[in-house]
Order: sequence, then C-alpha cells, then structure tokens
Amino acid sequence: MCRWLSYLGPEAYLDSLLFEPKYSLVQQSLAARKSVCATQGDGFGLGWYGDHADPGLYREALPAWNDRNLRSLARQLRARLFFAHVRASTGTDTARSNCHPFAYDKWLFMHNGQIGGFDRLRRRLEAKIPDELYPFRAGTTDSETAFYLLFRHGIERDPVAALRAVLVDIEDERAAAGIDEPLRFTAALSDGRRVVAVRYASDDKPPSLYWRQDGATTVVVSEPLDGEAQSWNRVPANHFLISAPDQRVALCPVAA
Amino acid sequence: MCRWLSYLGPEAYLDSLLFEPKYSLVQQSLAARKSVCATQGDGFGLGWYGDHADPGLYREALPAWNDRNLRSLARQLRARLFFAHVRASTGTDTARSNCHPFAYDKWLFMHNGQIGGFDRLRRRLEAKIPDELYPFRAGTTDSETAFYLLFRHGIERDPVAALRAVLVDIEDERAAAGIDEPLRFTAALSDGRRVVAVRYASDDKPPSLYWRQDGATTVVVSEPLDGEAQSWNRVPANHFLISAPDQRVALCPVAA
Amino acid sequence: MCRWLSYLGPEAYLDSLLFEPKYSLVQQSLAARKSVCATQGDGFGLGWYGDHADPGLYREALPAWNDRNLRSLARQLRARLFFAHVRASTGTDTARSNCHPFAYDKWLFMHNGQIGGFDRLRRRLEAKIPDELYPFRAGTTDSETAFYLLFRHGIERDPVAALRAVLVDIEDERAAAGIDEPLRFTAALSDGRRVVAVRYASDDKPPSLYWRQDGATTVVVSEPLDGEAQSWNRVPANHFLISAPDQRVALCPVAA
Amino acid sequence: MCRWLSYLGPEAYLDSLLFEPKYSLVQQSLAARKSVCATQGDGFGLGWYGDHADPGLYREALPAWNDRNLRSLARQLRARLFFAHVRASTGTDTARSNCHPFAYDKWLFMHNGQIGGFDRLRRRLEAKIPDELYPFRAGTTDSETAFYLLFRHGIERDPVAALRAVLVDIEDERAAAGIDEPLRFTAALSDGRRVVAVRYASDDKPPSLYWRQDGATTVVVSEPLDGEAQSWNRVPANHFLISAPDQRVALCPVAA
Repeated sequence: MCRWLSYLGPEAYLDSLLFEPKYSLVQQSLAARKSVCATQGDGFGLGWYGDHADPGLYREALPAWNDRNLRSLARQLRARLFFAHVRASTGTDTARSNCHPFAYDKWLFMHNGQIGGFDRLRRRLEAKIPDELYPFRAGTTDSETAFYLLFRHGIERDPVAALRAVLVDIEDERAAAGIDEPLRFTAALSDGRRVVAVRYASDDKPPSLYWRQDGATTVVVSEPLDGEAQSWNRVPANHFLISAPDQRVALCPVAA
Repeated sequence: MCRWLSYLGPEAYLDSLLFEPKYSLVQQSLAARKSVCATQGDGFGLGWYGDHADPGLYREALPAWNDRNLRSLARQLRARLFFAHVRASTGTDTARSNCHPFAYDKWLFMHNGQIGGFDRLRRRLEAKIPDELYPFRAGTTDSETAFYLLFRHGIERDPVAALRAVLVDIEDERAAAGIDEPLRFTAALSDGRRVVAVRYASDDKPPSLYWRQDGATTVVVSEPLDGEAQSWNRVPANHFLISAPDQRVALCPVAA
Repeated sequence: MCRWLSYLGPEAYLDSLLFEPKYSLVQQSLAARKSVCATQGDGFGLGWYGDHADPGLYREALPAWNDRNLRSLARQLRARLFFAHVRASTGTDTARSNCHPFAYDKWLFMHNGQIGGFDRLRRRLEAKIPDELYPFRAGTTDSETAFYLLFRHGIERDPVAALRAVLVDIEDERAAAGIDEPLRFTAALSDGRRVVAVRYASDDKPPSLYWRQDGATTVVVSEPLDGEAQSWNRVPANHFLISAPDQRVALCPVAA
Repeated sequence: MCRWLSYLGPEAYLDSLLFEPKYSLVQQSLAARKSVCATQGDGFGLGWYGDHADPGLYREALPAWNDRNLRSLARQLRARLFFAHVRASTGTDTARSNCHPFAYDKWLFMHNGQIGGFDRLRRRLEAKIPDELYPFRAGTTDSETAFYLLFRHGIERDPVAALRAVLVDIEDERAAAGIDEPLRFTAALSDGRRVVAVRYASDDKPPSLYWRQDGATTVVVSEPLDGEAQSWNRVPANHFLISAPDQRVALCPVAA
C-alpha cells in the first residue's frame, strides 16, 4: 500500500509536511526501519501548483528517504496546493512513469489501493481511455489508467461525478470479467484550486484516509502525520471529500 | 536512431564485440564524443542465451559508455548467441522498460527505426496484441508493441512469416490512419538457436544493416565494428537475413 | 545494518541463495514488508568469480527487491564462489560506488556494521591507504576505506593477518581521536579461492554471523536463510572464519 | 568538457535559459545529436537561490536531455541567481555526487576543465581540505576537491582571492609532483549575491567562457546560447569576472 498527502492552504514549504512532522510522509516511507512494519520504497512523487496553471512534477524511482534532491526541493518549494506520494508497488515496475502523482494539463491525481485483477481488466479499461489521451499513457499502473479514464466523464464540469463514473467503469468491468479480488481506491484529484479525495472499496476494507482542517489549511493523508490520531478526522468509507479555499470540508457518499 | 548487434557462433565473451573493436557498439554509443555525430545515450540492453531456454536480460537507462556493471558483465559473460542494443529515443521515456532487447519466453527482439505516426497508431496496434500477452507490455515504445504482435502470427512455427505479417499489420494501420511518416524497421529476433533479422522501410531509406560470416560466426550490425566497410556485407533493403548454426547466411525478400 | 552472504562450493546458480530460500537475501532486504522490522533498501551488490582471476561485479542503488536485472542475472549466473550484499545506509549516499562488494584486482570485500565516529576518523584512515590505491577510492563509505587499508598489510601473503591489522588500525585511530561510538565489523574477504570472514565489535554487540557447511558447500550469512536457526552455526564474537575448498571451516580468535 | 551557465538578474524562470534559446544548455548537452560533435551526457545539475540563504540543488546522473523532472522544475522555478551544468566525465563515475554544482552553506560552485594528473595529485590536494569540511566530500572529482579547498583561503572575506589561492595550491602541487598534463579551469562561484567566474589554464588553451550583460542581467556561459557569437563577450584567458547586482561586470587578471 502506498501513502499520500494533499495540502491546500496558505503558501507553505513542502518540507513542513514532508519531513518535519514526527510521522512525516518521508518518515512513513521508511517506517519499517523504526517500528511500524511497512515499507514504501518503490519510488515517490511530488506535484505542486506554482505560477502556471499546470502543476510541477518531480518523480523518482528511488526510495524517498534517500533522495537528496527531494530534501532540497522540499526545503525550497512553497505552494498553496501540493500532493506527495510514496509508493509500494503492487507488482508493476519501479519506474518514474509508474510513480504518482500523474499530471495532465492542469490536473493532478494520485492513488493508494489496487484494482484487483487488473491484469485481466487492463485491456478493457485502457480501451476506454479517450483517443486524444491514449498516447500520453506512459506507464503500466492501474492508477494511471484510472486517471485517464476521468477525462471521458466531464472531469472539467464535475470532478466528483467523473471520479464516481470511473469507479462505476471499473466495477462494471470487474463484474463483466468475473473478478473476485476487491477494488480498493483512495485517491486525490486537483485542478489547482480544489482537492477532491475519495475513499472507496468494493469490500469492507477501504484503505485508511484522514483529514484535518485548521483555519484555511486542509490536509488529507493516508495516515496521521503525528501520533495524535484523535486530532484527525477519518473519511468515512465510500465517501468523497471536497476541499476548496475558504470553505469547510464537505463529505458526500459515493453512492449518490 | 539506435544501434544494435547480434552474435551467433562459438561461445564468446560479450566484451569481444561490445568493447574491444575499434568501432565497438559501446564506442558507437558515444561516437559523438570522438568524431561521428550521433549519440545513443538513452539506455541500452543485453540479451543472451545461457543454460536456460529463456535468455538473460540486462537493461539500463544510463548511457552504455558509463555503466560499470555493463563493462563487468561483458567481461564475465560468454554466450553462443547474444543481442546488444544502444538506444537513441525517438520520443518515449528513458526507462529500462523502454530499452531493448525485449524478451518473452525463449524469444529476444530488438529494433532500430521508427513506426512513423505511432502516436496515432498506438491504440490500433496495441489492440492487436494477444490477450494473454497484453499484461506483459511494460513500456510504451513502438518496438515493444511490434514484438508482442509477433505472437499473433505463429512466431513459433515460422518467425520469418511472423515478422512479415507484423510489417503488414503496421502498413495496414498506417494506410487506414492515413499516416505519411515512413515506417523504418531494422530488427533482430531469436529463439535461442537462430537469428532472423530484417531491414525494411516503407520509403527508400531503411536504416543501415550489415553482416559478416566468418567460419561458424555470424555477426549482424547496424554499422560495421571496424573501419573496413568493405569486409562487411550490406543487407539489401526490404530483405530478411536468416542465420543458423552451421549454415550459410540466407537472404530473402520481405515481399514474398 | 546490512545483510550479506558468501557462498563457496560446487558451481551453483546465484538465485538458489538469492531468491529461492524462504528467508533469501532478497527476502531479507524487504523483510519489513512482511513481518520483521528492518529494511535494506539502499542498494545492493553481487560479486562472483567466473573464468577470470578478477571477479564480476554488479551493483545498483535501487532496492534489490525491485531490480529485474538482478533477478535475471541471478538466474543465469553460476559460480563456485560469490558474495551478495543488501545495504542499509548508515548515513552515506545511496550510490553504486557506496554499494558492496568492493573489488580490486582479484579481491572481493563486503561489510556489515559501522565504524563509529567515522566522520572524525575518515581523514586519518584515508591517509593510510597506500598511494597506488588511493585513486581507486570511488565512494565515501567506511567499508571501502577499510577494504583499501587491507593492502597495506600484506593481504596477499596472509589475508587473516591483514584483516586483523586493519581492525588494529581502526582501533588505534578510535583511541587517538577519543571516539566513544563502537566499532562493529562483520565482513568477508576473498581472493577467488578462499573466503575469510570476521565477526568483531569493540563492545559486546557484534552484528550476527552464521555459517553452515554441507559437504563441499560453505555458506556464511548475516542471518539464516531459512527458519531453522538450529541448523546454522553462529560465528563466535571476535573470531575469524576461514573457508577453503575441500577443507573444514576453521575458526580462530581475532586477538591472537 | 562540460558546459555551464550562470544567471544573475531579475527573477527569471530557469527554462528561459535552460531550454528556450536556440543553443540552450540542454541543447548543448545533446548537441552531438544535431551537428556539433560533443556530448555532455554524464549527468547535470542545477543550483538556485530561493528564499533561504542556502541554495537549492537538483543533480541527476541521467543525461539532461532526457530528464522530465528537469523540464518541469525549470518551468516552475524562478530565481535571481542560478547555476546550471551539464557534465562530460573526464574519468570519474557518473553519479549524482560527482555532478555540479557543489553546494556548502550559502556557496555554489561549478567547474569545466580538468586538473591534469589528478590521480597523482588527489591525495595531496585532499589533504589540504579543512578538517571540518572533509566529511562533506561526497564524490571523487577534482572539481569538488577544488571547491572545498576554497574554504581554507578566506572565501567569506574575499572569494576572488580564495579562487586565486586555490589555483596556486593546485599549481604548487602539480609542480611538486612533476605533472605535465595541463590545468584547465573555468569555474563559477556564488554566495547568493554575486557571481565570480574564472577562466584559467596552465597552458594556452583555457576552456571557452563568454558573458553578456543586458541591463540588470548578466549571463556567463561556456558557449553562447544563440548563434550570434558577436553579441557575446569573451572572458580573456587567465581572468576573473565579477558580477554583482546593479554593477557593471568587472574583469581582472588572475596573476595580480
């Protein structure tokens, strides 16, 4: 399982979330070294919105805990909205093109979980990627496929509806192919202004997802960045979370 | 344009062809440094047949001239049949999964050239990859797609016919999509016993391809490994070359 | 802490020890993913003796568990004597030049442990590297420094004495610099024929080291490759282990 | 030979110099592909001053022309002062730690050229690195050694004098060791406010160095970024160039 975080709020240095907290994202990537038993050592990525509508992207196949470039970038870069992701491969290659976040135009997307039986679904799902986006497919992950599927569902008009429609696409194909392995899907999507996150599973085991709003700052994370789980809110299973500047976080069920 | 070589003959150390000749393959990768004006610095790969039916594979995204592992492996490894390839990307990512040779089961394949207009053909061509091989697609190159297409055409029974059929597949899709950019295709394929190479173009500019047979040894190369071009034979445009142990090299036209 | 193994015996495929055993070395590198809480994800390396007096070397900064080249090489390569190492950095960069084993001429060396206070000792210890070897220093680890120090102590004549003398060198400099952090040193050295291993610490906590001799095969490992610890022998603290073809393993104390 | 550029002026996006000009630095790295015969494919690096006194650093062992992270960073990052470097190794490993620029505290340094006979000088020169900086030595290049030598010569007080003193250090050791190979040294140094560059050789072949001042902007480059050499000024052999905000570029001879 991967770990990710999204930040929306006043301009902040990336290292304030990536390195400084007790259970920072980079700490989580090597947690196994310390006390928890899980390693996310199969690459990582950063996406952030700067002066342009399209986000910056820094992805690397090395473990995050070892990358001096990451440390330097996180110290120098400030943003009002950024995504960070540390990867534990569920089978595909360790390569930059398989690292999250994925970016296209102004959009950023990252995912934790797994489309069960993806080997048998891959061809069906890739066949649904819009023609004009197909050549941009650069890797082989289920996550990148899901990202490009968003663009067949009016992501521009309604990103929440697009995410919901992609979950339906995947569920339909799982049913058609008779896949038993579950779909687990905890993801975040942004257009540079708002963040939409989702916590979903076809069974009763969706990956964990937490959020905290503190003034103008909203952070969504796979797991709390400090030891105080009680100060974080759990996103309910099969719910969307919508975070926009100067608004309270909204939650709404996936099944509308 | 990439550069490649294939070797078939008595067991030989790989560095005898990769490093030692005056214009060795690794020398060709950095030729630009010396006098010729072309760089193949976008990764490289080795495939060789050892004790197993399936080949060994070593691929790396670094330039070949800088890889100490390559130098050590080429010094230690011996084989009766091996492929080596240095890559100059025609647009896709520099990643191991885009480096040649490609391997599946007992087969090795490598390619120099370009399927013109591949961005517009990719989806059509990938749709023809047999279901059972589709999940093995690990990169995004036109070359890897061509490799997996071979398996829909009875590669086991007749590799030459399979290569011919893939060229027809590509030409058909180029015509259907109204692609003007040429198809250039110089490739080698092996089952561990024989080597089939092809030099083809849809226009009159197929990439160069040379061969030399010396006793039991047959070497096929993108360009001669020494300065003596006269001691090498040019594969005619739009021809296959078939090389098998203890047999004279055979040439036959692509258009049968 | 790193993990390593050395093999001496009848020619064997490397994957028989690197991948196949239940607690194979590669499994140990990602142990954290499963149940044990330690990750060796900061690169790895292989050294093996083939047809030449000098060993082959394959080192990579990626985690071992993710490297397809390693899997392919381990499947294809056979050797009568090989070393393998998975690294958990104690502070220095993740780079190939910091990965073990280190090779010079016919010698291979790898190390698990740490020269405590190395930052304060580095200059003193590097100053003792023989002039003719100084330019070969390619990384920044304490381990590589220890390796090159061996060559000032008649390694060719008596490798055990050379290892002992290097431990004395380090202890002398630790004393001179008033270093409190312990010296922990579990290492293996080979000339292509014999393997000399050592388990040493300046305090009472030397890293673990086990061995098993089964007919003509001797394997020395940081930790047992299967769950049956009782079938492995522990190298006593502050002892050398000497393994040569057709001889019983010999143990002798570091303090002669 | 490497290629580098330094920029001092109003805040500018890095890609305005790294990617956009006709002979941009990245274009120079793969020039060989086009028409000129030289490849700088052995890694690259960026250093820039942002909000902190210490610079950001992004270094990578891949060729610059292939790095998507570089493209994204150069598009997003703005700075009033930045260095960029593409490397052609003169023998040392291709590794991030050998890529320029080098950074320590607030200082950035990069170099093009070669300390002839460095293998025989390395130990003598490294012995002169101040004790407190010795542990920061992360690579094996002559350039990094030269950088750390600056700190024994009052770099803080007078960076020009420090550069001059390092050239004397190297010349002294070359003389003492009887080195015939020339010293070639074109370098840039910054404290985040000013840029000091130097063009020096022990023979009459110093690497090329050009500058252009246009209003508040001063760019110093190994070779012109456009085809109009006449619009660039050549730094005279064996001269320093000093560039500070709101001041005209100053030149002064190395031999004071």
